[in-house]
Amino acid sequence: MALGPWSTADPQRPLLLFAVTPPRRTTTAEDAQRIADRTCERLRDLDLDALVLYDIDDETDRNPDERPFPYLPTLDPGEFRTRHLTGWDGPVVVYRSTGKYTTGELAGWFGAQDPQQVSTVLVGASSSGSAVRTTLSEAQDLRRRHAPELELGGVAIPERHEARGDEHERMRRKQAAGVGFFVTQVVYDVGAAKSMVSDYRYDCAAQGRDPAPVVFTLSVCGSRKTLEFLEWLGVHVPRWMRNDLRHAPDPLATSFDQCVSIAEDLAQFCTRHDIPFGFNVESVSIRRAEIDASVRLAARLGDLLGRGPSPVGPGPHRRAGRP
Amino acid sequence: MALGPWSTADPQRPLLLFAVTPPRRTTTAEDAQRIADRTCERLRDLDLDALVLYDIDDETDRNPDERPFPYLPTLDPGEFRTRHLTGWDGPVVVYRSTGKYTTGELAGWFGAQDPQQVSTVLVGASSSGSAVRTTLSEAQDLRRRHAPELELGGVAIPERHEARGDEHERMRRKQAAGVGFFVTQVVYDVGAAKSMVSDYRYDCAAQGRDPAPVVFTLSVCGSRKTLEFLEWLGVHVPRWMRNDLRHAPDPLATSFDQCVSIAEDLAQFCTRHDIPFGFNVESVSIRRAEIDASVRLAARLGDLLGRGPSPVGPGPHRRAGRP
Repeated sequence: MALGPWSTADPQRPLLLFAVTPPRRTTTAEDAQRIADRTCERLRDLDLDALVLYDIDDETDRNPDERPFPYLPTLDPGEFRTRHLTGWDGPVVVYRSTGKYTTGELAGWFGAQDPQQVSTVLVGASSSGSAVRTTLSEAQDLRRRHAPELELGGVAIPERHEARGDEHERMRRKQAAGVGFFVTQVVYDVGAAKSMVSDYRYDCAAQGRDPAPVVFTLSVCGSRKTLEFLEWLGVHVPRWMRNDLRHAPDPLATSFDQCVSIAEDLAQFCTRHDIPFGFNVESVSIRRAEIDASVRLAARLGDLLGRGPSPVGPGPHRRAGRP
Repeated sequence: MALGPWSTADPQRPLLLFAVTPPRRTTTAEDAQRIADRTCERLRDLDLDALVLYDIDDETDRNPDERPFPYLPTLDPGEFRTRHLTGWDGPVVVYRSTGKYTTGELAGWFGAQDPQQVSTVLVGASSSGSAVRTTLSEAQDLRRRHAPELELGGVAIPERHEARGDEHERMRRKQAAGVGFFVTQVVYDVGAAKSMVSDYRYDCAAQGRDPAPVVFTLSVCGSRKTLEFLEWLGVHVPRWMRNDLRHAPDPLATSFDQCVSIAEDLAQFCTRHDIPFGFNVESVSIRRAEIDASVRLAARLGDLLGRGPSPVGPGPHRRAGRP
């Protein structure tokens, strides 16, 4: 099982990713360039394995409730990378919402990528009612035929596992379709995430398969609006965390600590169960304070994973990245 | 708010209880005495605040699935105490399943107790379809009229909170009816327990009430049969814990560690949120190994709470009670 272009050195090394949503499609080329440059500047010292570029789809068909932040079409992540993210020389993981593209568009894009620099996470349509140009399994098939070297990732959703109990079977099928790593939805419910990877791990063991790395996405929340948006996206925020965020004098600091606790719990759990894992930090909000806290969170998780200048272990240096 | 006969010295001191189910009604007086003596012997060094005596009701009306352990009527907990537990000179918490008794029986029992030695936890009928001699609110009313000095406890169920989100309101009503402390159902889902006390704590704050102590019940599980019984009783065992228990070479040791982790998490959470709390250890199984592990667990929690010979703090002495 390959582990993506970023980790050929040591397949057991936990991954550290940082996820960015491309700017709105209405952004001028100059502004897009400024955003890209600032992003590279911010992430330079983080010792990331890869930069993740999301492919935003209008998900209002999935949730009839009013979207807390409006949906605005964004630049294509592949184009944003090649045109603007020229300052980033590390690997990238480009998301593809398969339903947005024709099979021709996807096949062409797959074939044009350098597998040493790019991997892709394919995301199926967000609801069965969506107008879909290419289904997830068609896209997986295209990747296999047109770019078998292109590392393929899949999405894993702990909330779906909590509700239906079969996400590990979905992961098994994705792995059979070529998926070499998973990235989760934002994790606030650590128990649900542990249950999902636990079922996945025991399922792999029963079938004699090696588990693929599971990269847990973490995202800080600094306001009620962001909290609403997370819940709108389908993230299950346990009531006690929700209460603490709503009542905290500094919700962003509280959220930062919650994310670190979740990461520590998951790292310990995956290590004990021999599940290859990693973390992906994203900011679901575009507020400056939350983006800055995301970068600090990634630094703190780098610490936790034993990277960069601060070795893992208790001591005052571990607090360096805290707000 | 009174805190029971056991803790007049320091109302903020976390409680440590140990719960015992009286022997079967068919047990001879000699055997009941032997069991009582052995129980006292086992618990002598634990520095408990009180011994809890359960009042077992046939709960098959609550769950149509086959009961993993058969229901066998047990000795009355009040009689077991006065006749056999003469070696226990500390306080006791006697449970009363109100539906089993007439109002006359309950009023008589309430009036005969020494409030310096006894408190009672009243438990309502397990389902609305049960034949009920006295309802929970009738029993609460009887206690108020016949034994206002008798400290009253109530049951709190995190699983019910997870399903309906209103257990904190039920706790508020019980507190208004005179309940001065809560004892939870066995906790395996620490997130559900935290959410319940979080909602309870914020509800108290909003109303200017002091929260009553919440005593979390913990119980080790050493076999698949015990696991099934816990689930039959309505305990939500998260899938990852269930997997670990089912696959562990030594499930009892795994369960012991899980219980300690839950306790550490809850102690930290309650301390941070200024919620008075405590632990109650019970063995839902009558297997010797599981009872012994329960006693060790209570010793370990005593350690965690800073009791007995071992002060709280990291270090090898904290491992003394581990299996």
